[in-house]
Amino acid sequence: MPHITLNSDELGIRGLFRFRPETARPLNELVEVLLRGPGSLTPGERELIAAYVSALNDCLYCCSSHSAYAAAQLPGGMALVEEVCDDAASAPVSTKLKALLGIASAVQQSGLKVSEDDVTAARAAGATDLEIHDTVLIAAAFCMFNRYVDGLATIAPDDSASYDVRAQRIVADGYLALLADSQAQG
Amino acid sequence: MPHITLNSDELGIRGLFRFRPETARPLNELVEVLLRGPGSLTPGERELIAAYVSALNDCLYCCSSHSAYAAAQLPGGMALVEEVCDDAASAPVSTKLKALLGIASAVQQSGLKVSEDDVTAARAAGATDLEIHDTVLIAAAFCMFNRYVDGLATIAPDDSASYDVRAQRIVADGYLALLADSQAQG
Repeated sequence: MPHITLNSDELGIRGLFRFRPETARPLNELVEVLLRGPGSLTPGERELIAAYVSALNDCLYCCSSHSAYAAAQLPGGMALVEEVCDDAASAPVSTKLKALLGIASAVQQSGLKVSEDDVTAARAAGATDLEIHDTVLIAAAFCMFNRYVDGLATIAPDDSASYDVRAQRIVADGYLALLADSQAQG
Repeated sequence: MPHITLNSDELGIRGLFRFRPETARPLNELVEVLLRGPGSLTPGERELIAAYVSALNDCLYCCSSHSAYAAAQLPGGMALVEEVCDDAASAPVSTKLKALLGIASAVQQSGLKVSEDDVTAARAAGATDLEIHDTVLIAAAFCMFNRYVDGLATIAPDDSASYDVRAQRIVADGYLALLADSQAQG
């Protein structure tokens, strides 16, 4: 049961967005630009970083959500997402993405854990400064979202279908459209 | 030296805002509403939560910044901020604020560390659901900002005067005005 009384029965972060629309708006604008805005990492790769960090933080709701969103946009589908979340170092992803996942893993512990060697490895594998920047910020942002969702003890649905439905809406129209759906239901 | 090549010599998060204005905007909108928007916790109390979490994360730039912003808006000034950052449990703040700082400290470790007892204590001390919500989100957001600033190895000024100058601007006009100053200098 959530730690606070929400004003809807929506699950996970969606109940928090409904409860506090003033913060929901910038939070959704942030994920829209970070995970789906113009960039050289694909939306699927960026969602994979989000799912991976959420797995490291043991956040069931965010990990289930962003795993579904990543799987819907990556050729390897859910099998690949699960391999990355289980053990990124041995997963069949490019050297560049593996190096970026290494940076994300350091960020999940602390910003101070990202070493010059981590960044050198990513750059040697072809990562640009913008890709390194966005990886750090995606990982940092999910350290926020995971704490927000679990710090208020919101409930994660246990059926994968509900995450898959939202994945379709996000792939087609994005986070702000999903937020508008939720607020229109209010 | 920062891990990536920035497009300005601005320090701390300000260099990152200049490098990536697309994410700077929602990030500043988020702190503006969370730390300065309408609410029953004062801006000084909310900045204090931000400074405290940044101290727990050993983020020198964010801790120095938000300590200055809190000190400028709290009757106890910097002496009180330093007492809270050193040992919140024994600092001379209200029972309610102490309980909210306890929740923030749990969030800093993990969202899953916030217990029903933490929330019950805050509520018994008079905290509302909105105050508990905002405390969790402020603490979570600074787990993001701290990782963003340190994960890219940005530089923290070591003179307190530069933080104090920004504190005056924030108290008077807020985060979006400060962001506009920075972008106008570009």
